[in-house]
Amino acid sequence: MLLYQDARAPNPRRVRMFLHEKGLTDQVELIEVSINDRAHQQPAYLDKNPLALVPVMEFADGRLLRESIAICRYLEEQHPQPSLFGGDAWQRAQVEQWNRHAELELLFPVAQVFRNSHPFWQGRIRQAPEFAEIMREHVARRFTWLDGELATRPWFAGDSFSVADITAVCAIDFGKVSRLMIGDDTPHLARWYAEVKARPSYKA
Amino acid sequence: MLLYQDARAPNPRRVRMFLHEKGLTDQVELIEVSINDRAHQQPAYLDKNPLALVPVMEFADGRLLRESIAICRYLEEQHPQPSLFGGDAWQRAQVEQWNRHAELELLFPVAQVFRNSHPFWQGRIRQAPEFAEIMREHVARRFTWLDGELATRPWFAGDSFSVADITAVCAIDFGKVSRLMIGDDTPHLARWYAEVKARPSYKA
Repeated sequence: MLLYQDARAPNPRRVRMFLHEKGLTDQVELIEVSINDRAHQQPAYLDKNPLALVPVMEFADGRLLRESIAICRYLEEQHPQPSLFGGDAWQRAQVEQWNRHAELELLFPVAQVFRNSHPFWQGRIRQAPEFAEIMREHVARRFTWLDGELATRPWFAGDSFSVADITAVCAIDFGKVSRLMIGDDTPHLARWYAEVKARPSYKA
Repeated sequence: MLLYQDARAPNPRRVRMFLHEKGLTDQVELIEVSINDRAHQQPAYLDKNPLALVPVMEFADGRLLRESIAICRYLEEQHPQPSLFGGDAWQRAQVEQWNRHAELELLFPVAQVFRNSHPFWQGRIRQAPEFAEIMREHVARRFTWLDGELATRPWFAGDSFSVADITAVCAIDFGKVSRLMIGDDTPHLARWYAEVKARPSYKA
């Protein structure tokens, strides 16, 4: 399998962590598509993904799959153990709920802070700094909320590490470039973060 | 089952359409949580969902499930036919990819245009009108892209109607309140829209 990706972008990292947790890292070749060099906007890559987004997975028979979670879900079906999407219908519903929370309440707002306020994007895209400020406040409120949630259980979706934890840690690390940091006022979130960071997949 | 919802909001409509396609409408009681009346911010509802979002599904045993797609995915497992998430692993990956495209490239931008520019939200939330304009241009480009996609197949994810079509039509209809309309320049998207509109579930 070929994974087209940017090593610094959060969504490819979700797939790399997922592959590592599944023990599949050595079955995938990473193909760098540098956003900084605008490689994602070149015709060769737009043939893979007309939306100019990373990652894309290419399988041995040439089939292409876009969207990090579509790729992870497909891999889960091919390699069910260890389960990262939940072991039964209710657990799968919980993982889905929490992966969406991690994505819509953390990763998306963090990405919008970056896109709408960071110098990296100046001159590349039209920015709305006021929206970055709105999202910055949103993320701070969500850190507080998640701290309360993680006081009650070890992982985002319950007793087991799941794809929701992968999404959340990629979001939180992505926030650092915009100075969005977990503070001393969210000890349970910090405890969770330290436990994710101790997993070998964190460095994938 | 109880579905806490706002009849005018797009995400509860996704679940209502899904229930209708599954033939489950008469198994669910709708409980109105009016966003206009700020019922979603009252303590009784925050006990159901601390994020103050609709919908929430409550099952007979008291279990709660948030997030429209988590609810739909759980229902799919309980009631597999007709399949709305795909019949095999690759189809499921395609549905996931296209449902995410429908959500991230249509529903999300449409919602941000509404939140950041519509008078409904003035005085209720902080708005960033410039971001609404950025998202308005994004949606127009995505309509053009989707028109090309729907020239090649009947439904978003392939030969079968799926949850991706539900997400997309709820997004497109939600755009009307912000004057985001499918025009004469996207005939294939218009053909698809007419076919979704002809299904009984459209009025759910």
